[in-house]
Amino acid sequence: MLSTFPRLGALSIRCKGCYRALTSLAEPSGPQVVTSTVPGPKSIALKNELQEIQNADAVQLFVNYNKSVGNYLVDADGNTFLDVYTQISSLPLGYNHPALVSAVQDPKNVSTFVNRPALGILPPDGHVQRLRSSLLSIAPAGLSEVQTMACGSCSNENAYKAVFINYMARKRGGRAPTQEELESSKYNKEPGSPSISILSFDGSFHGRTFGCLSTTHSKPIHKLDIPAFDWPIAHYPQYKYPLEHFTEENAAEDAKSLAHVEELIGQWQKKGCPVAGLIVEPIQGEGGDNRASDEFYCQLRNLASKNDVVFICDEVQTGCGPTGKWWAHEYWGLSNPPDIVCFSKKMLTGGYFYKSEVRPKEAYRIFNTWVGDPTKLLLLEEVIKVVKNEALLENICKTGDFMLNGMTDLSKKYPVLHNVRGRGTFGAADMPTPKARDKLIKELHLKGVHCGGSGNQSLRLRTALTFERKHAELFLDRLEQVLKIF
Amino acid sequence: MLSTFPRLGALSIRCKGCYRALTSLAEPSGPQVVTSTVPGPKSIALKNELQEIQNADAVQLFVNYNKSVGNYLVDADGNTFLDVYTQISSLPLGYNHPALVSAVQDPKNVSTFVNRPALGILPPDGHVQRLRSSLLSIAPAGLSEVQTMACGSCSNENAYKAVFINYMARKRGGRAPTQEELESSKYNKEPGSPSISILSFDGSFHGRTFGCLSTTHSKPIHKLDIPAFDWPIAHYPQYKYPLEHFTEENAAEDAKSLAHVEELIGQWQKKGCPVAGLIVEPIQGEGGDNRASDEFYCQLRNLASKNDVVFICDEVQTGCGPTGKWWAHEYWGLSNPPDIVCFSKKMLTGGYFYKSEVRPKEAYRIFNTWVGDPTKLLLLEEVIKVVKNEALLENICKTGDFMLNGMTDLSKKYPVLHNVRGRGTFGAADMPTPKARDKLIKELHLKGVHCGGSGNQSLRLRTALTFERKHAELFLDRLEQVLKIF
Repeated sequence: MLSTFPRLGALSIRCKGCYRALTSLAEPSGPQVVTSTVPGPKSIALKNELQEIQNADAVQLFVNYNKSVGNYLVDADGNTFLDVYTQISSLPLGYNHPALVSAVQDPKNVSTFVNRPALGILPPDGHVQRLRSSLLSIAPAGLSEVQTMACGSCSNENAYKAVFINYMARKRGGRAPTQEELESSKYNKEPGSPSISILSFDGSFHGRTFGCLSTTHSKPIHKLDIPAFDWPIAHYPQYKYPLEHFTEENAAEDAKSLAHVEELIGQWQKKGCPVAGLIVEPIQGEGGDNRASDEFYCQLRNLASKNDVVFICDEVQTGCGPTGKWWAHEYWGLSNPPDIVCFSKKMLTGGYFYKSEVRPKEAYRIFNTWVGDPTKLLLLEEVIKVVKNEALLENICKTGDFMLNGMTDLSKKYPVLHNVRGRGTFGAADMPTPKARDKLIKELHLKGVHCGGSGNQSLRLRTALTFERKHAELFLDRLEQVLKIF
Repeated sequence: MLSTFPRLGALSIRCKGCYRALTSLAEPSGPQVVTSTVPGPKSIALKNELQEIQNADAVQLFVNYNKSVGNYLVDADGNTFLDVYTQISSLPLGYNHPALVSAVQDPKNVSTFVNRPALGILPPDGHVQRLRSSLLSIAPAGLSEVQTMACGSCSNENAYKAVFINYMARKRGGRAPTQEELESSKYNKEPGSPSISILSFDGSFHGRTFGCLSTTHSKPIHKLDIPAFDWPIAHYPQYKYPLEHFTEENAAEDAKSLAHVEELIGQWQKKGCPVAGLIVEPIQGEGGDNRASDEFYCQLRNLASKNDVVFICDEVQTGCGPTGKWWAHEYWGLSNPPDIVCFSKKMLTGGYFYKSEVRPKEAYRIFNTWVGDPTKLLLLEEVIKVVKNEALLENICKTGDFMLNGMTDLSKKYPVLHNVRGRGTFGAADMPTPKARDKLIKELHLKGVHCGGSGNQSLRLRTALTFERKHAELFLDRLEQVLKIF
């Protein structure tokens, strides 16, 4: 495959369906595990070498990215896995998609890969056009502006900064900052460095830098030993499944959470650390694939508006199609869109969309040397073309329904698997214990399926947008083989 | 030049001196400004368009990166500038260097550009080898481990996390965290989320995310309105120039700063927020190119050791050669190296080197989806080859001496320019006021020199490592032309 792909890419065929046909052609017919253990001996040897350089305990496999293709990941030992996890949900089109190969090989793109600019001061002459044909072409309704960043954590960190700058600008009511405000800010002191907060939800994950981490509450391993801001943390609805059997209980959970948010906004105002913004995921993607109802989000959005709290929707994991829409919050049916929508992962670049009201008035408030990477915008432009030309969102809706229905059927036959849930192919199911979940993942690896976990005991599925029914059939087959041994 | 460069790159010539000869060949003989204003009409029009999408007030020029070459930046209006600022010091080899063009065009590298991995769980099979041939091949003496990150802010944020994790692990003395520690950490509460701090220096710049920003104290525009941790901030030596005239005064400044650090460590211990680490730049690169003596840093390092404070050296701006050594702290002559050295910018990838004592024991403590970008390691490997093959560090030492001596001579003739200082071509000089500095930069632009500022009233020079005597001569000529009008 190493030699095949560059050639395929160079064809530069752009007609609808062509890429998918080509990718399918090059994909193997199914997974194949050739070693008796996973990881195999080559991955283990490389991991031991990496351990000399850094803590490599999280490494699962070493990967041959030349040989990986479409929905199939090939490891250093020659094992071929059906990949339903796609680099923690960050590969929109799977491996070595011909459209991306072609973009990298296009001579007119070479200088973009070679010369990384300080984008905030010296953007490329084609930058405005590229923003329009990439990010802005899929901007959530009502959000006309966009800020690029290098990764998901930086996206959220800078969204929080934009919220705080906006809050204090409103508080000053148009007057310039005083000398005292300016000087005290340099030394981390009030009034320049104010006591204001971002409200987040229990179970959420918004990244691992200090601001983000103060709003992340999924697992102690992320948080232990790290100082954090004392910001309010609201109850997130805890649903019972199947949803249709517990309508009343789940509605009560929504109400409990909303009441808690309102209570915290009042409390934090009173204690002198007002809530300037709140952040929420459409599905808690790291915390356990926890869902709340569309109605919940509509009410939360209204509650934020009523209290002058900026509403940030964190779509780092849900954005760019895995739920079957570009943005998962489109399902909510909001009358007033979120004020800020953060993205990264499948979008290839980090960043956030925002309403013009949230734009900082001064230069250099939201800034760093690179503020993103134009090579990622170039690749994103190709991804968007492919998703549109090949109707991949529709594909994900159909494939997702098929896969989640199939998992629901399996859960009836093998009740050890339960709480099947998701949207599109952004899916999950629970096992009875963390140990059972870890065993499930390990056994799926041995059957040639690469997947991951979320929360304490959930199986996490995050496919590429090119994941089709035939792939879902293979996945369900292997899942059933594994469930039989529990 | 658009068509020339890919061809040059494809030659793949690797002999010593060849690349430099080729680059020089393609470079123009000097800058040329063809518009009556800078920015010219095309840059202005594009900026107006970008203003519809985001706050674009910081944008200086739109750049034609296809046509830019070597030490020359070509803007959208066709102006050619000698670039002594190189994307806020982040382009090691200037524009479109043939070695990098060649690397991007090499078919065996295509899959690296197309498939960005979740590096912490699924590294490429060649990753260990690439870490050795890129980052580790220029690791500071005594620092055998390295962690990659996407940008400078993430590098420092994660270095702080490593410091805190290390501090608390030592405090626990080998016992596992208690249930109370684990649970409380999820909710930002003690004891799991402890009150501990990083000491930083007045005037420093360490990035713009919340952890970094709590240690940044250069300008209010970076800090205003953003909540910060209440961490200790020490006096940084304020030197008088020329250094040889003020030996005694400057030594007193060193002593004052060191005494302040020791006092703060004691104070913060007493107030229940012990100093776990301190961070310092070898030259305060954003805060005004402020220097402290090598002796100061040696004593600061010892003081940190004595107090069990982890010593972090922030080489984001000074690292990768601009001072004439790979790492500016090599000049200090430390007997005990820094515990952590952070990098980004010219290194193309963010990250930090560290001593094995600082390695976190558990997986997933220092982690995120991408933890860096292998395409930047691939390019860095080429950069390091070129720097070594072409003796570019020696070039920077020689060119830097020539340039700074020339500036010192000019400052005698035109005393409006003063306090000329620097190491290698990492240079600066002061103007009497911020307004005069801004005018100097503007006039240099009109004469075809692209440069920047640091601090309130300093001219900041950050050339590529390929900057030679002939470029320095051109710069000095244009600088003199401009100084005449003050």
